[in-house]
Amino acid sequence: MNPIEDIQARADSRRIAIDKVGIKDILHPVRVQDKNGGEQHTVARFDMYVNLPHDFKGTHMSRFVEILNGHDREISIASFPVMLQEMLQRLEAESGYIDMRFPYFVEKAAPVSGVRSLLDYQVGFIGEIDAQGCRTKVKIVVPVTSLCPCSKEISERGAHNQRSHVSVTVATSQFIWIEDLIALVEAEASSPIYGLLKRPDEKYVTEYAYDHPKFVEDMVRDVAARLDAEPRIGAYTVESENFESIHNHSAYALVERRKPTL
Amino acid sequence: MNPIEDIQARADSRRIAIDKVGIKDILHPVRVQDKNGGEQHTVARFDMYVNLPHDFKGTHMSRFVEILNGHDREISIASFPVMLQEMLQRLEAESGYIDMRFPYFVEKAAPVSGVRSLLDYQVGFIGEIDAQGCRTKVKIVVPVTSLCPCSKEISERGAHNQRSHVSVTVATSQFIWIEDLIALVEAEASSPIYGLLKRPDEKYVTEYAYDHPKFVEDMVRDVAARLDAEPRIGAYTVESENFESIHNHSAYALVERRKPTL
Amino acid sequence: MNPIEDIQARADSRRIAIDKVGIKDILHPVRVQDKNGGEQHTVARFDMYVNLPHDFKGTHMSRFVEILNGHDREISIASFPVMLQEMLQRLEAESGYIDMRFPYFVEKAAPVSGVRSLLDYQVGFIGEIDAQGCRTKVKIVVPVTSLCPCSKEISERGAHNQRSHVSVTVATSQFIWIEDLIALVEAEASSPIYGLLKRPDEKYVTEYAYDHPKFVEDMVRDVAARLDAEPRIGAYTVESENFESIHNHSAYALVERRKPTL
Amino acid sequence: MNPIEDIQARADSRRIAIDKVGIKDILHPVRVQDKNGGEQHTVARFDMYVNLPHDFKGTHMSRFVEILNGHDREISIASFPVMLQEMLQRLEAESGYIDMRFPYFVEKAAPVSGVRSLLDYQVGFIGEIDAQGCRTKVKIVVPVTSLCPCSKEISERGAHNQRSHVSVTVATSQFIWIEDLIALVEAEASSPIYGLLKRPDEKYVTEYAYDHPKFVEDMVRDVAARLDAEPRIGAYTVESENFESIHNHSAYALVERRKPTL
Repeated sequence: MNPIEDIQARADSRRIAIDKVGIKDILHPVRVQDKNGGEQHTVARFDMYVNLPHDFKGTHMSRFVEILNGHDREISIASFPVMLQEMLQRLEAESGYIDMRFPYFVEKAAPVSGVRSLLDYQVGFIGEIDAQGCRTKVKIVVPVTSLCPCSKEISERGAHNQRSHVSVTVATSQFIWIEDLIALVEAEASSPIYGLLKRPDEKYVTEYAYDHPKFVEDMVRDVAARLDAEPRIGAYTVESENFESIHNHSAYALVERRKPTL
Repeated sequence: MNPIEDIQARADSRRIAIDKVGIKDILHPVRVQDKNGGEQHTVARFDMYVNLPHDFKGTHMSRFVEILNGHDREISIASFPVMLQEMLQRLEAESGYIDMRFPYFVEKAAPVSGVRSLLDYQVGFIGEIDAQGCRTKVKIVVPVTSLCPCSKEISERGAHNQRSHVSVTVATSQFIWIEDLIALVEAEASSPIYGLLKRPDEKYVTEYAYDHPKFVEDMVRDVAARLDAEPRIGAYTVESENFESIHNHSAYALVERRKPTL
Repeated sequence: MNPIEDIQARADSRRIAIDKVGIKDILHPVRVQDKNGGEQHTVARFDMYVNLPHDFKGTHMSRFVEILNGHDREISIASFPVMLQEMLQRLEAESGYIDMRFPYFVEKAAPVSGVRSLLDYQVGFIGEIDAQGCRTKVKIVVPVTSLCPCSKEISERGAHNQRSHVSVTVATSQFIWIEDLIALVEAEASSPIYGLLKRPDEKYVTEYAYDHPKFVEDMVRDVAARLDAEPRIGAYTVESENFESIHNHSAYALVERRKPTL
Repeated sequence: MNPIEDIQARADSRRIAIDKVGIKDILHPVRVQDKNGGEQHTVARFDMYVNLPHDFKGTHMSRFVEILNGHDREISIASFPVMLQEMLQRLEAESGYIDMRFPYFVEKAAPVSGVRSLLDYQVGFIGEIDAQGCRTKVKIVVPVTSLCPCSKEISERGAHNQRSHVSVTVATSQFIWIEDLIALVEAEASSPIYGLLKRPDEKYVTEYAYDHPKFVEDMVRDVAARLDAEPRIGAYTVESENFESIHNHSAYALVERRKPTL
């Protein structure tokens, strides 16, 4: 025996192919192009998998980590399709899958005072590659305010509202800025939220939310209608989770749509 | 206007049907029948959703909670299909979905000393109902020891090992005890794990794991082979996540299978 | 050498005593006496530690697990001080520490309709024992609605509100029901929350919260004032975390108090 | 009434001072100086609190966010004491507290092949300020391999090992590089861990861990001994949590020390 034999390369006779094998939950610094022309630095959590035909005993785990470390110290988001290709080749696989997710910051201006502050969003890229090509999905989680129409209508004063997470996962045929996807969602919330609000801003968002009540069903429908109208977007999923202020559980809704043209 | 009008029952003109709407992450006490004839009490986290046709504005969130609270204080797992039916009727829906997950305890005997202790497993029931009927899946997460065959073979002494989570999700046409599914998985691990081990037991599991090295690929394949051989099980997914002791990330593999006969 | 020597019992010469050593994050079923005379079954997560004098090499980890498994299958909360004593003796230690935490359910009646449903609270018992005796603290986390007084006052309509977690940790010289501690906190919230609310209830809690606006500072002060007035309670900590509906961060406040008489 | 009165500045008559009030869990990009001369970009989670005397009704939450957003887009870690000062002044408080925590990357060379890869560590800065001055603590969480001496000694082959988190929190009178603290901890582990290991490296770390078995008690004592010997370090806490590969719970130990000279 070679003292350090490559056991993973041995043949396997169980005749069971593996759909996905690789590494999960590895952190790596990344940089992402801003819509405003800059580049932002953040930290991403990666899952990287390939398929394994039934006649191979194992994959080479260290090669996934080599791919992550083979780029600049910070991986550019532009390298995402390159990494998918590279993974297929270096792992000698037929299909590959990368999921990366990271906090992303947008500088927002408060609605009245205009004071500027950062707000963080969770963003993910999910890529799949095989003989048919490479398909990428983008996922964003947008924290917003939701205000309950029922509570407003039946109450003489006030209306319960809460933080909600609206998640949108889209397959795109063309490039879309993360900022544009976020803006699309925020336009349909009872109110967008902000890192920093002065008193006139707080008055504004309070009244704005009161004037734009939405059920969890409205939120996903209204976002879905916008995604339907956006030609660059193919299949999509919209979810909303409202962390109800009057309960200890969430209200939740999901719309999934596969557009005929894509 | 009726002061407390039922806004959710209004018509909706956006023409967007909702795939899932309901409540998420609500806790409720449950009781589950043990294989050994007893009943165990635990606490489950529920998601409960129905579809909503395009022409209805909203669902009735409170009815989901009523269903949870309409049984005994502790919901029996035997009520799971009943709850699915009940949800369809009370929400006047065409399809329904319930996901419940809970810690489940099995009393195990240590392999040499025979000392007994409880070990906790995560268990889930996922049920879907529609005009075609009711389909239930069971998911178990089994913590085990995995020991790396490569590390063992190339090293003169020792071998890195770690805790792993082997997850099995199965569609079943007949009843299967949770304990039997767990045993099926544990039989394929480098070693089962235990709450309580005396020194002779610790010696035993250490040597046993060293004598049964398994890659993450082996783990999912060997469990898949057993599930293939079990006629009561239809489609299944097997995953293994190894919390590598020599890395800060996991090794991961997944096999998904839809048996022809089911 | 005895093949299975007790290495942990060897002498240690580093002269460094260990403040806490033991097991962490072990799950076990428990049962807790209800205020209404029943007993509820739940699942607790335990940390169990003892001190280790500088001249002992190691503690006996398996004995902690034996203590957990040495009672009935379900540990009664009444056994908590017994377990502390037992731990001291079996581990031959001078000081001991147990932290157990579990979901606890209270059946509540909706404020108008009176419909009954369970609400879950996180409860913890923290016990310390040494030559001076045994000291126990109870911790409860109460989810409530908070409504912002500033938002209400400056806005012509509506007021932002959200789910908040009010945590109270108390040292008690006498027995206090968990239900009583919860009620004490809920009385000071903008509104208590419920599992199940019908429309007249939703109207009620919306208006009630609007009529009882509280800053995070008010919440901790008002709960603190009640704890000050309760003779059975000694030292305490009150925290409130408001998951702001207009921000992506929490507002937080804490009051810690050591009453002179205890 | 001024339409947008500053309610928080009103007087309060409850006579209860608040120990900590502010914002919790807000994300912001930061940059940290590397030991190797570069600067790394990461994302931190902040808690920022001040005290509130009994006669003030509320603090000004938006000012905390202004402080975070008032520096460069990325906050330099060098600004940490500046932010503490600024917080005291802008909030007109007597005491202040900031906790920030972030993933930090160190490029490590594998022990035999020398291949380089990043490893992530959790790092935190905890600062307190009051009339007596400013005190800062640094906390690092170092993932390592631990291998059980008992399992090794009693078993004819192999030894159970697992990933462990060794956490060190130190008060320092002088500057210490994060990299130096990490190295101090890793030197006492059964083995350091790495992002990327080639086969000769895997052989090396496997044998190295087997040759350096450590109980959880050894780990905290050996790190404590090193911290005792480091004159730049004052009070400290060392914890180790071993995610046992043969159990479903952790082994844990803690040593806390307040050096006489500081």
